[in-house]
Amino acid sequence: MPIEDAAGQQTNAGLMRVRFRETRSATEELCRSLTAEDMMVQSCPEASPTKWHLAHTSWFFETFILREFVPGYRPFDDRFLWLFNSYYKSLGEMPEKKLRASFSRPGLDEILAFRRHVNEAMDRLFETGAPEAALSRVLLGLHHEQQHLELIATDIKHAFFTNPLHPAFIADTLPVAEIPAPPIAWIGYEGGLAEIGDPGSEFSFDNETPRHRVFLEPYQLASRLTTCAEYLAFMEDAGYQRPELWLSEGWDTVEREGWRAPLYWRRDETGRWQIFTMRGWQSLKDLSETPVCHVSFFEADAFARWSGKRLATEFEWEHAAAQLPIAGNLFESGLLHPSAAPITSGLTQIFGDVWEWTASAYTGYPGYKPLPGALGEYNGKFMSSQMVLRGGSCVTPVSHLRASYRNFFQPATRWQFSGIRLADGVNA
Amino acid sequence: MPIEDAAGQQTNAGLMRVRFRETRSATEELCRSLTAEDMMVQSCPEASPTKWHLAHTSWFFETFILREFVPGYRPFDDRFLWLFNSYYKSLGEMPEKKLRASFSRPGLDEILAFRRHVNEAMDRLFETGAPEAALSRVLLGLHHEQQHLELIATDIKHAFFTNPLHPAFIADTLPVAEIPAPPIAWIGYEGGLAEIGDPGSEFSFDNETPRHRVFLEPYQLASRLTTCAEYLAFMEDAGYQRPELWLSEGWDTVEREGWRAPLYWRRDETGRWQIFTMRGWQSLKDLSETPVCHVSFFEADAFARWSGKRLATEFEWEHAAAQLPIAGNLFESGLLHPSAAPITSGLTQIFGDVWEWTASAYTGYPGYKPLPGALGEYNGKFMSSQMVLRGGSCVTPVSHLRASYRNFFQPATRWQFSGIRLADGVNA
Amino acid sequence: MPIEDAAGQQTNAGLMRVRFRETRSATEELCRSLTAEDMMVQSCPEASPTKWHLAHTSWFFETFILREFVPGYRPFDDRFLWLFNSYYKSLGEMPEKKLRASFSRPGLDEILAFRRHVNEAMDRLFETGAPEAALSRVLLGLHHEQQHLELIATDIKHAFFTNPLHPAFIADTLPVAEIPAPPIAWIGYEGGLAEIGDPGSEFSFDNETPRHRVFLEPYQLASRLTTCAEYLAFMEDAGYQRPELWLSEGWDTVEREGWRAPLYWRRDETGRWQIFTMRGWQSLKDLSETPVCHVSFFEADAFARWSGKRLATEFEWEHAAAQLPIAGNLFESGLLHPSAAPITSGLTQIFGDVWEWTASAYTGYPGYKPLPGALGEYNGKFMSSQMVLRGGSCVTPVSHLRASYRNFFQPATRWQFSGIRLADGVNA
Amino acid sequence: MPIEDAAGQQTNAGLMRVRFRETRSATEELCRSLTAEDMMVQSCPEASPTKWHLAHTSWFFETFILREFVPGYRPFDDRFLWLFNSYYKSLGEMPEKKLRASFSRPGLDEILAFRRHVNEAMDRLFETGAPEAALSRVLLGLHHEQQHLELIATDIKHAFFTNPLHPAFIADTLPVAEIPAPPIAWIGYEGGLAEIGDPGSEFSFDNETPRHRVFLEPYQLASRLTTCAEYLAFMEDAGYQRPELWLSEGWDTVEREGWRAPLYWRRDETGRWQIFTMRGWQSLKDLSETPVCHVSFFEADAFARWSGKRLATEFEWEHAAAQLPIAGNLFESGLLHPSAAPITSGLTQIFGDVWEWTASAYTGYPGYKPLPGALGEYNGKFMSSQMVLRGGSCVTPVSHLRASYRNFFQPATRWQFSGIRLADGVNA
Repeated sequence: MPIEDAAGQQTNAGLMRVRFRETRSATEELCRSLTAEDMMVQSCPEASPTKWHLAHTSWFFETFILREFVPGYRPFDDRFLWLFNSYYKSLGEMPEKKLRASFSRPGLDEILAFRRHVNEAMDRLFETGAPEAALSRVLLGLHHEQQHLELIATDIKHAFFTNPLHPAFIADTLPVAEIPAPPIAWIGYEGGLAEIGDPGSEFSFDNETPRHRVFLEPYQLASRLTTCAEYLAFMEDAGYQRPELWLSEGWDTVEREGWRAPLYWRRDETGRWQIFTMRGWQSLKDLSETPVCHVSFFEADAFARWSGKRLATEFEWEHAAAQLPIAGNLFESGLLHPSAAPITSGLTQIFGDVWEWTASAYTGYPGYKPLPGALGEYNGKFMSSQMVLRGGSCVTPVSHLRASYRNFFQPATRWQFSGIRLADGVNA
Repeated sequence: MPIEDAAGQQTNAGLMRVRFRETRSATEELCRSLTAEDMMVQSCPEASPTKWHLAHTSWFFETFILREFVPGYRPFDDRFLWLFNSYYKSLGEMPEKKLRASFSRPGLDEILAFRRHVNEAMDRLFETGAPEAALSRVLLGLHHEQQHLELIATDIKHAFFTNPLHPAFIADTLPVAEIPAPPIAWIGYEGGLAEIGDPGSEFSFDNETPRHRVFLEPYQLASRLTTCAEYLAFMEDAGYQRPELWLSEGWDTVEREGWRAPLYWRRDETGRWQIFTMRGWQSLKDLSETPVCHVSFFEADAFARWSGKRLATEFEWEHAAAQLPIAGNLFESGLLHPSAAPITSGLTQIFGDVWEWTASAYTGYPGYKPLPGALGEYNGKFMSSQMVLRGGSCVTPVSHLRASYRNFFQPATRWQFSGIRLADGVNA
Repeated sequence: MPIEDAAGQQTNAGLMRVRFRETRSATEELCRSLTAEDMMVQSCPEASPTKWHLAHTSWFFETFILREFVPGYRPFDDRFLWLFNSYYKSLGEMPEKKLRASFSRPGLDEILAFRRHVNEAMDRLFETGAPEAALSRVLLGLHHEQQHLELIATDIKHAFFTNPLHPAFIADTLPVAEIPAPPIAWIGYEGGLAEIGDPGSEFSFDNETPRHRVFLEPYQLASRLTTCAEYLAFMEDAGYQRPELWLSEGWDTVEREGWRAPLYWRRDETGRWQIFTMRGWQSLKDLSETPVCHVSFFEADAFARWSGKRLATEFEWEHAAAQLPIAGNLFESGLLHPSAAPITSGLTQIFGDVWEWTASAYTGYPGYKPLPGALGEYNGKFMSSQMVLRGGSCVTPVSHLRASYRNFFQPATRWQFSGIRLADGVNA
Repeated sequence: MPIEDAAGQQTNAGLMRVRFRETRSATEELCRSLTAEDMMVQSCPEASPTKWHLAHTSWFFETFILREFVPGYRPFDDRFLWLFNSYYKSLGEMPEKKLRASFSRPGLDEILAFRRHVNEAMDRLFETGAPEAALSRVLLGLHHEQQHLELIATDIKHAFFTNPLHPAFIADTLPVAEIPAPPIAWIGYEGGLAEIGDPGSEFSFDNETPRHRVFLEPYQLASRLTTCAEYLAFMEDAGYQRPELWLSEGWDTVEREGWRAPLYWRRDETGRWQIFTMRGWQSLKDLSETPVCHVSFFEADAFARWSGKRLATEFEWEHAAAQLPIAGNLFESGLLHPSAAPITSGLTQIFGDVWEWTASAYTGYPGYKPLPGALGEYNGKFMSSQMVLRGGSCVTPVSHLRASYRNFFQPATRWQFSGIRLADGVNA
């Protein structure tokens, strides 16, 4: 919460200015090893070129803050208003998403100048006393930028995987897990009426509100995430060949796409599994104790069924997570890959490592109201045919997360750092 | 509940025999005006030829009852085991759904002989004392047959609509609504902890269980369904042209499919709207007070947003419906089209007329367990990317319904008799 | 040519009347074993339901003769004008081809009544003295009807193949070839300036005209068609696995469609090849000396390349065929399947058995003019992306063929009775 | 022809070395104004990124000359052998074409180093006495490089058109045509036996051989290309709305793609037509006398039918062109756009300006033999479903052309600089 003193407003703006700089720098820092050419690649329908992310996040501040709150603000380039709009139809026409790979102009230099232009204008806004309404938009803009930081990492991993030369984003290798992951312990919860949704954090997205009550039956959560070794056992037990383990739509996807393993897995010439990471190909053997990653909801669901368990609902998950500090293998660890569970008691790996698929479809909470205006398109219009994921991943910044945070993707999505935590009921 | 007396088992079998005959006859009665050629048409991916429905419902009794409970049962034709399997992968391979339109052989005569063969074998089973396990399968089979009765009506309507000559299924015309539908009244509910799921009826599908508690905020339901006149106002207010009214996936569908009105609506040469019914084309003017029908979830959701309201969750709906008798404009009325709301107080049109799209995605209840074996594929494997509909329609038999009954379709589905009831919260 | 005597016109009409009756009866005779349900099936985009063929051929006479030449002609049903139009856009709108499977109404009885109505009106026209212009249209209509006779056989074969029960069109079996096909002899031609195109037959399609000169290099033709045994050798030499044998577009098709054998070939449980015929499945062993059939142009071309040979141009083919009588295994043989080459010298199997893919793309001859009016759409508008086939097949009536006759299909087409004759140049 | 003297071989190599340097430099010179980001764009399935063209042309020399003729040649990077293979399946696997946009690595610097590496190795080969077989491969490689020079221009135009900002490749504007194009004169040819195919030039592609005789009926060619103004008249006469003007496949394409004008045409806000050029958008008014460009075969064919004329066959075209010098508005003019016809008598614009669609499908000449080995895949495997274009365009280098040169594309292709010359027969 912002410091509230005599000069309350001012202090809040001052704090926000610091965070603005940090967040904006973090984005650029992440891209440091990328060439202008790398930043052009858009390798799947979910992804955007890095350069576009750099521009769009600046567009967000320009559109929703500078143009609204800074009288006489001079936009960097009028054409950018529609060029870098992602999906806000209330603001007018925009280019089709798939065209983003054609944006060789503006060049990277120009995009970076655009970022500086916006940063400087924001600086002047902070200096001259931004109104509270603007500051709350800044906060939204920073969370928005963090989402795109995460997308940059996710998208460039896919871009490098698609490149037949498979370049590495980072030049070293991941540490080899020396010891096995601890066995799964089952953490029980009594259930009953639970409060769900943001309890009043400094910031939350509209889809986390309003806070409301949900009734939970008693349940248990696995103490850690599912590992690659465990998932391999499912594969070796013909997991991808047995329709009875799959939702009907999932099985159709398996057959249509020819899935036989998570995304980013392949066999080398000798038949041994390898996993593509931000550091290039690594042997599955070396990563077997780390959480399985880049699986779809359908795979998570099938694995749970094969295990005789199920996935948690998003409410069960949040109820358990709300007790825990936001800590774990997050973006700041620099690993950019999930890591093996620690040998501790209690619920581990709740935040970070991988987004955890839940059994909950993404819909609005009772009394849900989107933000007014174009920002109302941020979350609400995606509330169909998507599943909720919780907990953040190894590419999510720590300050971006909350126990009530809801991520959402279509159930066949695999390009995300998404994984599995098992859940179960309690026998009476 | 079956009569329980000294000869309990016997009596139960006797009752079941009566219902078996009635249900099977009702299916055939519905097809009386159809030619063998009509019964070949499969006009959209959702639909099957009538003849296939006639065979598949018999296959169900043969596969799950006669082959399991009648020692030495002689199947009508061994090839039918896989030929008329719909989607039970545990039972082995089956023809692709789209091939059903190629089943000119077996001919209708042979399919009717297959039905008689199964009926006679069932009769013998009833006579010789069917075990309780068989009788409970019979009950499932009868509800299965009723689902296909409804599908036959739904599919043949689409088949006749697809035929450029647009033949009518019934030779008369619908009565013209003389008086306007009553204004919507808002029926309020206090909410709180509600019991949801089948309370222990004679029969329910596995997806209605287990009964469990759900916490509901206070809410209101519209006293009647949305009418064609009301929906037309939405259309005339550019409802299909304003992306801000739609879910993102809904808007994409509108654009891709060119939707501008519900399915089965068209303009005549003078620009006046007409609606295709089981009795052929009728003027919208004559049907304006009847419930709008054949809209997708996306259209229902957009209409609700335009109205400043929302759709009910399936739990709100069930909580309200549980108080009411199963009565309304159902299959037995013979209308086979939704009809105008009665002028009475309280909640009307809850059962029958149209399936009501809810705001709830179709997922398993806490502790949900599918039936064992192949029958476990009946409902559970469809629990992704579908929305729940409640209440039955004008082509649903009365004995098929319950307050806890859950129907489910993908949100873009329009070939069903599906419509809209508005809901709202309660301002504190 | 029509008999020319004192009552020339009359006699011509009289002859035409006889042929009209024969041709119309032949169509119906072919359908005798089909049920109304069989006649509803449309199993691939190339095919139409039998019932539609029966109606469309009548539509042709009604549209182009009765409506034009019979004052006061009363159409059977005004809606049929557009309902049974195939592709003549000059005549107005028509239903999409894929909708034909929804035409359960009009029923078969009504279609047969339509045929009788047209036949009777035609009879009156013949009696009352049809003008020469009408008679020449009749001739076109009869050839049109013969094309659809052939299509009925082709389409119903595909319909029965698509039906998972694989019914047989004819109840007996094909004779087993007792002796091997004779070795291929190479028949040489000197080439030079050749006259190509219809030399002035009683009838020809516009695409066979004008007759014109083409210069041919010396060439050779295989004395007989390629057999199943020869094609199997290609398959067993990895013919479908070697891209260097294929045109680029052909190889893409092989990969996309998963082709590994001609259409209608399958392996039984023991791995032995079987071929689906109008008489159901037969062992390849029994048919190995018969011409391979239901191959695409791409397969014919790849087989020829593998053989070190090539396909003939349509001009080489016509130059050779022009010397020969129209005789062979044609529709009238009743086999409805290609049969082994006779042991005779010279060029055999030129007419009948299978349509022979040529190396010629289908384009207009120098000075080509389509027929005037809607009939100009008959052939000319298809002159792109298709290859020419020559010689007719076992389902082509003898009176339908000429040496100059040009059939044409897209190069990936396999549902036709289409096969292979090798050709070669002459070394100087 | 190479100079033949005492040191013949040496001289030939010397000449080839000069041409090698010139050709390689020309490619790089064309790219001078492009950024590394521009060179990443692949905006349609026909196109490749500029960077890929730069690499693939070097791959060609490395693969077919350096690896074969230079003992101990050290490849720049072994992975490039498959990475930059375009479609030569005989050489092994290669990346899918659509993946080329993901090749951010190797970066442009590395590709340019690859070019230098190849250039230097080629230099050494020239110095040390390249055998005749190598020199003839060099000649092929130079023509190959020129084809890709042309593709670079064609592809970057499309890339810049796809970019919503529509950057210009060249910073100036095209000259405005001051005077109308001369009226079309009809140039007549007697026809008869004509020699077609390469008569023995220094170089030709395999598909131009063998030279052979073709019989031509008398014909006429339009003295110049069809202009934008003439094409606009076709559009304004509802050319895109009248199915009777189109081939069936062409009309289907018009409807599916929504074509209403050539590619690169649009209306500005006031409804006036503009054309996208290498210099950005220009008013149609200013370009109305220049040849229409970027039309498909289907549009060329429909325009000709609307004009009461037809397209020439490739043989008619070649017979006429063989008399003329290779001169015109070619790549060397620097316009990179077609220009208005000169006011002179006789046949004009035969070479350059736009590739002229012919009425001829692309097939092999009598006795055609592809080159041996992998190079046999260069032309021959594309001989289906494509139409021949003749004459080169404003982006074709002059030394690349011949009267016998055959270009070929699928009939719906529009991204090429392709246009229309009318032809006609001669009334007897």
